[in-house]
Amino acid sequence: MGYKQLTEKTAVTYAKENGYFSEGTVVTCEEIGDGNLNYVFRLHDGKKGLILKQALPYAKVVGESWPLSLHRATIESHALQIFAKYVPEYVPEVYGHDGTLAIIAMEDLSALTITRKGLIDGEDYPLLSRHIGRFLAHVLFYTSDFGLKSEEKRVLDSQFVNPDLCKITEDLVFTDPFANYETNDYEEELQDIVDELWCDKNLKLKVGQYKYKFLTRKEALIHGDLHTGSIFSSSSETKVIDPEFATFGPLGFDLGQFIANLLANALSRKENKRNVIFFHIEQTWSVFVETFTKLWMLEGVEAYTQDKQWLPIVLRNIFKDAVSFAGCEMIRRTIGLAHVADLDEIPQKEVKLLAKRHALRLGRKLLLHETENADARLFRILFESIVFEKELRV
Amino acid sequence: MGYKQLTEKTAVTYAKENGYFSEGTVVTCEEIGDGNLNYVFRLHDGKKGLILKQALPYAKVVGESWPLSLHRATIESHALQIFAKYVPEYVPEVYGHDGTLAIIAMEDLSALTITRKGLIDGEDYPLLSRHIGRFLAHVLFYTSDFGLKSEEKRVLDSQFVNPDLCKITEDLVFTDPFANYETNDYEEELQDIVDELWCDKNLKLKVGQYKYKFLTRKEALIHGDLHTGSIFSSSSETKVIDPEFATFGPLGFDLGQFIANLLANALSRKENKRNVIFFHIEQTWSVFVETFTKLWMLEGVEAYTQDKQWLPIVLRNIFKDAVSFAGCEMIRRTIGLAHVADLDEIPQKEVKLLAKRHALRLGRKLLLHETENADARLFRILFESIVFEKELRV
Repeated sequence: MGYKQLTEKTAVTYAKENGYFSEGTVVTCEEIGDGNLNYVFRLHDGKKGLILKQALPYAKVVGESWPLSLHRATIESHALQIFAKYVPEYVPEVYGHDGTLAIIAMEDLSALTITRKGLIDGEDYPLLSRHIGRFLAHVLFYTSDFGLKSEEKRVLDSQFVNPDLCKITEDLVFTDPFANYETNDYEEELQDIVDELWCDKNLKLKVGQYKYKFLTRKEALIHGDLHTGSIFSSSSETKVIDPEFATFGPLGFDLGQFIANLLANALSRKENKRNVIFFHIEQTWSVFVETFTKLWMLEGVEAYTQDKQWLPIVLRNIFKDAVSFAGCEMIRRTIGLAHVADLDEIPQKEVKLLAKRHALRLGRKLLLHETENADARLFRILFESIVFEKELRV
Repeated sequence: MGYKQLTEKTAVTYAKENGYFSEGTVVTCEEIGDGNLNYVFRLHDGKKGLILKQALPYAKVVGESWPLSLHRATIESHALQIFAKYVPEYVPEVYGHDGTLAIIAMEDLSALTITRKGLIDGEDYPLLSRHIGRFLAHVLFYTSDFGLKSEEKRVLDSQFVNPDLCKITEDLVFTDPFANYETNDYEEELQDIVDELWCDKNLKLKVGQYKYKFLTRKEALIHGDLHTGSIFSSSSETKVIDPEFATFGPLGFDLGQFIANLLANALSRKENKRNVIFFHIEQTWSVFVETFTKLWMLEGVEAYTQDKQWLPIVLRNIFKDAVSFAGCEMIRRTIGLAHVADLDEIPQKEVKLLAKRHALRLGRKLLLHETENADARLFRILFESIVFEKELRV
C-alpha cells in the first residue's frame, strides 16, 4: 500500500476508516486548498469538522511540475506537535499523521480567516501581534540552546533536516530575486529599479551573508514560512499553520518574514489606515522581547544564561537579523516567483506599481541599514522615509 | 551477536576472520591505547601492520566510569572517509568498520610519532603546518556551503549528530574551566589567577558567546579535537587521527585548538627554541588562506562565492573565531580536566607554574582581543606581551 492521491470521495472513506467519523454518518467533503503543493480536504458531519491535508509529490510552479519530498508532511505534523508542546493555543490540534499517504488529520479552523485576506479586507485583529510575539518567543526559546539541553537540541535539529523545502527558500528568497533568474516575475515597468538592485554590490554582499546565516545558523526550530497567509485569525484567536518549511535556523528569520508581510500590507493601504499595521509590528517585537526575557530568566538551561549581560546582546542580534531577513522578504515578494496579494491585487495599475517600487526600496533599505538599537519603530521610520521620500536621520 | 570487548588474543582472531591476515599467519598483537576511551590494538605479521581501534562503552574520567555512545566509532570512521575523499594523504586509510563491535580497522602508522610527543622531544616537523593548513582548508571548504550543495550538506550534517561527544566539549572546553566545577584540576598555587578568571565578567561573556557559536554554527565538518596529540608526524608526512568528536561546527574551531596546542608547546620551550613554533602557527594560517582562496575561486558551488568582496569577510571571521577558540583551549588545557603534557611535564615546579600562569594570561588575552586584521603574527605578539610582560600595542 503506497502513496495515492485522495479525492473528495476517498477522503471521506479514509476519515471513517481511521475513526474520525463513525461509519453510518453523512459526511460532506470539499477540497479547499490552492492545489499547488497540497490537497486540503474539509470534512464535516453537520456537527464537527476535520481537515485532511495531503502533500502532493510535486509542486506546480514555474508552469511545470517540480518534484518535492512527501516527507514534508511528516515535518509539518512534527513541527505542529512541537509548537503545541509550548503554545497549544496558537496551533491547530493534530489528530493523526499518515506517513505513507503524507496526510495530516487536524482541527478544522474554518471559523477563522486567513490573516492576509482579512488584513486586505480591512479586518482588525487586535490580538494578532501579541499572539505571534508569544508564539515565537516560546517556540524559539524552548527549541534553542538557551531553553533545551544541547543533547536534545542536537537530536531535534536532526529530525528537521528538510533539504528540498530549504532549497526553495535558499533559491526563491535569497538567490533568484537578486539576479536575472528565470523564476523571477515582475511588471516590465519595474525593470529600471530591478536593474538597480541587481547592480548593487553592497546589497548583494549583504544578501549573500544572510543566505549564509540561513544555511548555517541552527539556533532554534523556525516555522520557515511565517507570512500572513500561514496564520488564521479572528478577533480573539490566532493559529499558525503550514510549517512544512520548518527547520533549525536563525532566531530572527520568522520575525523578519512576518514583519515584511505586514509592511507589504501597509504599502497597500491609504496613509490613514496604516497605524494598525505599525502597531502590530512594534507590538510583535515588544511582546517577543518581554516573553523571551521572562523565559530566559526563569527557564534557561544553558549555564551562561545566568549572565545578565548576554541577553541584550542576543536580543539585539535577533533584531538585526530580523531587519535584514525582512528586507529579503520584501524584495522577493515583489519581483520573485511568489508574490503577495496585498500588492498584486491593488486595482489601479499606477498605484500598484508605485507600491511595488516602494516595496523594493524599503527592502533595500532594510537590508543595508546598520543599527545597534533593537527598536522596532525603525520599521515605521524606514517605511515613511521611503513613502514620503523623507530625509532619513536614524 | 552484540558488543564485546576485544582482547589481544581475540583481536587476532577477529582480524583473521575478517580477512586482514590469512588463517595460518603468525600475527603479533599489542594494545597500545591509553585505555581511557578506546582500545587500540596493533597487529603485525612481520611484513604488514594493522590497527584495530575499538570504542569502549564508557570513558574512564573523573575517577569514575562515564557512559559514552559506541556510535562514536561510526562517526570516527565516517569522518576519516570524508577526509580521505578530499585529502587522503593526511589521514590513515580505513580498511573497514564494524558497527556492532564499534571497531575501525585502519592503516598502521607506527612509523610516525605523535606530534605532541615529538615537539616535546624537540623534533622538527618542517611540513606539519603546511599539511595541516591544507588539510583544514580542503575539508572545511568542501563540507561547507561554499563547496558542497546545500541539500547534500544538510544531509551530511545530520549524519554527524554527535551529542555525547559534543557535550564533553561543551562542558570541558567552554563551561567547567570558567567556574568552580568539580572536573577542574590545577595546582593550588594557581588559585589566585584562577579566581581572577572566574571573576572576569567580560571574559565569561565572551566564552559564553563562543560556546553558543560551537552549539549553533553548522558551517562545516570539523575534526572537533585537533590537538597535537591527534596528529602523527614525521619529517615528510602528517596524518590526522581520532576524529571521534567530528561534527558540523564553526570554521575556526579546529584552527584555534591546533594553534593553542602549539602555543602551549611554545610556553614549555626556552626562548631561543620557540621560533619554529611561531613559524608553524603563521604558516598554518597562510597555507590555509592560500588554499581556501584557491578553492573558493575554482570550486565554489554557492552562487554568492562569485562575489569577491565576500571572501575576505569570511576569512576574517574564521580568524577571529580561531583566536577566541584558541583562548578557550589554552585555559581549559591548564586548569580543566584534560591537560597537555607540554606543560604538565615541565620538570621544575616553579618553571611549570610560571608557564601555566602564562598560559592562563595568554588564553584570557586571546579571548578578549578584538582584531579586524587576519594576521597570524598576532599570536606571537600576544605571547611575547605576556611572557616578557611587554606593553601591548597591536
